[in-house]
Amino acid sequence: MPITVKELAELCGARIEGGDADRIIHSAADISSAQAGQVTQLTNSKYAAHLQQSAASACLIAEGFADQKVPETLALLVCKDPELAFIEAVKRLHPERTYAPEIAPQSVLASDVALGEAVYIGPYAVIGEQTRIGEHSAILAGAYIGRNVKIGKHCRIHPYAVIYDDVEIGDHVTIHSGAIIGADGFGYKFRNGAHVKVPQIGNVRIEDNVEIGANTCIDRGALGSTVIGTGSKIDNLVQIGHNNKVGRHVIMCGQTGVSGSCTIDDYAILAGSAGVADHVTIGKGAVVLARSGVAGDIPAGAQYFGSPAKDKKTAYKEQLAIQKLPELIKKVKQLEEKLQTLEKES
Amino acid sequence: MPITVKELAELCGARIEGGDADRIIHSAADISSAQAGQVTQLTNSKYAAHLQQSAASACLIAEGFADQKVPETLALLVCKDPELAFIEAVKRLHPERTYAPEIAPQSVLASDVALGEAVYIGPYAVIGEQTRIGEHSAILAGAYIGRNVKIGKHCRIHPYAVIYDDVEIGDHVTIHSGAIIGADGFGYKFRNGAHVKVPQIGNVRIEDNVEIGANTCIDRGALGSTVIGTGSKIDNLVQIGHNNKVGRHVIMCGQTGVSGSCTIDDYAILAGSAGVADHVTIGKGAVVLARSGVAGDIPAGAQYFGSPAKDKKTAYKEQLAIQKLPELIKKVKQLEEKLQTLEKES
Amino acid sequence: MPITVKELAELCGARIEGGDADRIIHSAADISSAQAGQVTQLTNSKYAAHLQQSAASACLIAEGFADQKVPETLALLVCKDPELAFIEAVKRLHPERTYAPEIAPQSVLASDVALGEAVYIGPYAVIGEQTRIGEHSAILAGAYIGRNVKIGKHCRIHPYAVIYDDVEIGDHVTIHSGAIIGADGFGYKFRNGAHVKVPQIGNVRIEDNVEIGANTCIDRGALGSTVIGTGSKIDNLVQIGHNNKVGRHVIMCGQTGVSGSCTIDDYAILAGSAGVADHVTIGKGAVVLARSGVAGDIPAGAQYFGSPAKDKKTAYKEQLAIQKLPELIKKVKQLEEKLQTLEKES
Repeated sequence: MPITVKELAELCGARIEGGDADRIIHSAADISSAQAGQVTQLTNSKYAAHLQQSAASACLIAEGFADQKVPETLALLVCKDPELAFIEAVKRLHPERTYAPEIAPQSVLASDVALGEAVYIGPYAVIGEQTRIGEHSAILAGAYIGRNVKIGKHCRIHPYAVIYDDVEIGDHVTIHSGAIIGADGFGYKFRNGAHVKVPQIGNVRIEDNVEIGANTCIDRGALGSTVIGTGSKIDNLVQIGHNNKVGRHVIMCGQTGVSGSCTIDDYAILAGSAGVADHVTIGKGAVVLARSGVAGDIPAGAQYFGSPAKDKKTAYKEQLAIQKLPELIKKVKQLEEKLQTLEKES
Repeated sequence: MPITVKELAELCGARIEGGDADRIIHSAADISSAQAGQVTQLTNSKYAAHLQQSAASACLIAEGFADQKVPETLALLVCKDPELAFIEAVKRLHPERTYAPEIAPQSVLASDVALGEAVYIGPYAVIGEQTRIGEHSAILAGAYIGRNVKIGKHCRIHPYAVIYDDVEIGDHVTIHSGAIIGADGFGYKFRNGAHVKVPQIGNVRIEDNVEIGANTCIDRGALGSTVIGTGSKIDNLVQIGHNNKVGRHVIMCGQTGVSGSCTIDDYAILAGSAGVADHVTIGKGAVVLARSGVAGDIPAGAQYFGSPAKDKKTAYKEQLAIQKLPELIKKVKQLEEKLQTLEKES
Repeated sequence: MPITVKELAELCGARIEGGDADRIIHSAADISSAQAGQVTQLTNSKYAAHLQQSAASACLIAEGFADQKVPETLALLVCKDPELAFIEAVKRLHPERTYAPEIAPQSVLASDVALGEAVYIGPYAVIGEQTRIGEHSAILAGAYIGRNVKIGKHCRIHPYAVIYDDVEIGDHVTIHSGAIIGADGFGYKFRNGAHVKVPQIGNVRIEDNVEIGANTCIDRGALGSTVIGTGSKIDNLVQIGHNNKVGRHVIMCGQTGVSGSCTIDDYAILAGSAGVADHVTIGKGAVVLARSGVAGDIPAGAQYFGSPAKDKKTAYKEQLAIQKLPELIKKVKQLEEKLQTLEKES
C-alpha cells in the first residue's frame, strides 16, 4: 500500500521538514537499514548518527529531536509520538493479512455451530458442538475448537492452536499457533502409593484484546475458571496453571510460569522466565524481573528480583555483597591473626 | 448427572448431618462460591469460615471437622477422606467426556493398523503402518501417530499430540495436546567445525497410568529407550531428553527439564521449572524444589533447593546468611578500624 | 540393512582384531546392552569393563584402547575416530525413514505453489500461495507452511510444525513437530493504560543444515529478519525472540530463551535453560552454562555461569565463598567479642 510522504505525514499528524513530500513510500524499515522509498523512525538519540547518512526517504521523529542534520533526500516527519506514528505507518504500508469469509470444504464443523458474519474457517479446522464464533473472526488451518466454546468478534486463532471444551474467549483476541487453552490443570491426591487425579472441570475465560503467544499453555480451572483479563499480553512458551486470575493489561514474557490459584493484578509485568509459586498475589503494577522465582506475595508497584525473589534494591545489594565475599573471607582471616597476635602480647 | 444428597452420601461412604437428604445436587464447586444445589468440600480449617454462610446444599468433611456451625440448608457429609470423596462426587456429577466408537471418515489410517474394540479416531488423525491401538482408546482430532507405535487400552491422545515412530504406550495413558513424544534426542559430535548428528534410533516407552501435559516433549533414546514409569504424572512444557529413565509415580511439574541419561527414581518430585543435568540420579522419593538446578546425584528422600541445588537445610541457611552479608561487611570494616586503633595503642 | 563385520570395518575404515569377520551385524546398541549380532562402541575407558563380558559381535574402538581383553566372539574394529565411525555404522544399519515422492490427496496446496522434484507432502499438510519447496524435501502430515515461504532442498518438516508467512529456510534443514517458526515477536508500546501492538512485519531466515527441536518457537523480526545461521542446532522448547541473529554452528540446549535483538556469535553454546536479555552479544565460541541468566555482553571464548551470569571462575569462587558464609558470620561474632575483651583490658 505505497503512499506519498505527504499522505504519510497526514496519517501520522506530522509536520514535514525537508525531503520530498511527493516521494512514494513503499515500506518501513529500521534506522540502520532504511533505503530510498522507506520510512523509518528515530526515538533514541543513541541511533541519531545513522540518520546523517541514511538513504531513507522519511523519518518519524519527535519535536525535540528535529534539529538533526540529515541528507536532502530525507523528509523529517515531526510529530508528538513518533513511536505510535510509526506503528500507524507500518500498519498502512504493510497491512495485516486478511482472510476472506469462507468455510473451507476440508473442515469439520458440528451441525449446531453458530458462526457470526464474515467468519473464516481454514482447511482442517475442527469445531465442536454448541460452539459459537463471533463475526469477522478467523479460525486458521487446523485450529481445533472444542465443544461449547465461545469465541468473540475479530479474533484470530492461528494454525494448530487448540481450544479445549467450554473455554470462553472475548473479542479481538489473537492466539498463536500451538497454544493450548484449557488442558487439564495439574492436580493429584497421593493415596496408597499412587497419584489420584483430581478432575479438572472448570474452564478458561479470556477477556477482550488479549494476545497469546505460540506454544503457550493455559490450563482450565479445577473448579471455576482460570482468567486472563482484558488487554493482557502473553508471550511464547508461557505456562499458566489452573485457577490463576491474571488481571487486565498484564505482561507475561517468554517462558514465564505461574503455578496455580495466583492473582496477578492489573498492569503487573513478569519478565522472561520468571516463575510464581501457587496461591501468590502479585500486586498492581508490580514488576518481577527476569528469571526471578516468586514464593510470596509482592506489593503493588514493587520491583522484585532473584530466586527467591526480593525487593530489587535488597537483591542488588546482596548481589554486590556476594561479589565482595571472597575478599571478605581473606580479610576476616587476617583480622583473626592480628587479633591473636594482640592477645598474645597483652 | 444430578443426584440427591442421600445418593451422594452413599457414593462417598459418608454420614449425613443436617441439611436435606432429598435435595438434588447438580454440580460441585469450591467452598467460597458454592450455591444451592451444589456440593463442596472442607479439608482445610483456614476456609472453615466460608461454611457458616455457605449457600451450598452439601459439604464433604472429615470427622474431626464435623462440629462446624452451618446453615440449616447445608448437609454435612462426614467421611474418612473428604478429598477422595469429593473426587468421586465430581466424577459422578461431571462425568468425563466420552467418545463413541467411530473412525472419522476424515482420518488417514495405514492399511495394516490394528485397532482394538470401541476405539475412536477423530477427524484428521493420521495413523502409520503397523501401529496398534488398544480397546476403548480415543485418538482425538488431528493426533498424529507414527509407524510401528503401540498404544494400550483406555488411552486418550488429545488433538495435535504427536507420537513419533516406534513409541510404546501402556494402558490408561493420557497425552494432552501439543505433546511431542519421540522426537530426536539432542546429540551431536563436533568435527571439522561442524556438529555431526548422532542418529537417534531408540524409542520412548511410556508405562500405564501416565499423564503427560500439553506441549511437553519426551525425546527418543539415542540407542535404547527413554522410559516413563507407571503412574508418573508430567505437567505442561516439560522437556525430557533422550535415554532418561523416569521411575514409577514420579511428579514433574510445569517447565521442568531433564537433560539426558538420568535416572529419576520412583516417587521423586520435581517442582516447577526445576532442571537436571545429564547422567544424574535422583533418589527414590527425593524432592527437587522449584527452579532448582541439579548437577549431581541426590540421595533418596532428600530435599534439594537452589542452583546448583543443595540439601534444603544447607541452602536455606546460606540464603539466610546472604541476607546478613551486607551488614557483615560493615561490621568487618568496623572491626578492622578498632583493631588498628588497638594496634597503634599497644 | 544387516552387513558383515568385514563390510562394517570397510565402511568405517577400521582394522579388525579378533572375532568373526563374516558375522552378520543387524543392529547397533550401547556397550552395556549389546548382544550377539550387534555392534557397539567404546570411547570412554570408564565403560571398558563392560567389554570383557560383552556378547556384542563387534566394537568400534580407538587405537589407544585396542589392548582390551575381550571375548573371542567380539571383533574389535580399530579406527581413528570410533565416534564418527559408529555414527556411520548406525546410519547403515538403521537407515533413516524415507518418504517416497507423493502429494497426499488429503493436503491443500495453493495453486501457485512451486515444488521441486521428489517432494513428499503428507496428509493434511497445508501450503500457502507463492510458496516454494526444494527437491527431495518432505513436508510431513499436517505441517502448515504459510504464504510466500521458501524451503530449500532435502528439508524435513515434521507433523504439525508451523511455518508462518514469508519465512525462508535453507537446505538440509530439519524442523521437529510443534516448532513454530515466524509467529509475531512480542512488542508493545504502553499508551493510555493499554499495550499497543507493534506490527511484526519482518520474517525468519534459517540457513542450511539447521535442526530445530520440538515445540521450539522462533519469532519473526519486528522489521527485518530473525536469523539462524548455518549448522546451528536448537533443542526442544527453546524461545528465540524477534530480531535475534544467531550465528553459525551455535548450540542452544533445551528450554533456553533469547529475548530479542541479540547477537549469538558463531560456535557459541547455550546450555539447558540458559536465558539471554535483549540487545546482548554473546561472543564467538562463548559458553553459557546451564540455567544461567545473561544480562550483558560476553566476550568470545568466555565461559559464564549464574544469574546474573559472570565469568565461570568468578562465579564458582563466589559459590564456594557462600558455602563458607554461615561459618564466617559466627567467626566475625567471635572476633567482635574478643576485640571487646581486649578493648576493655587496654
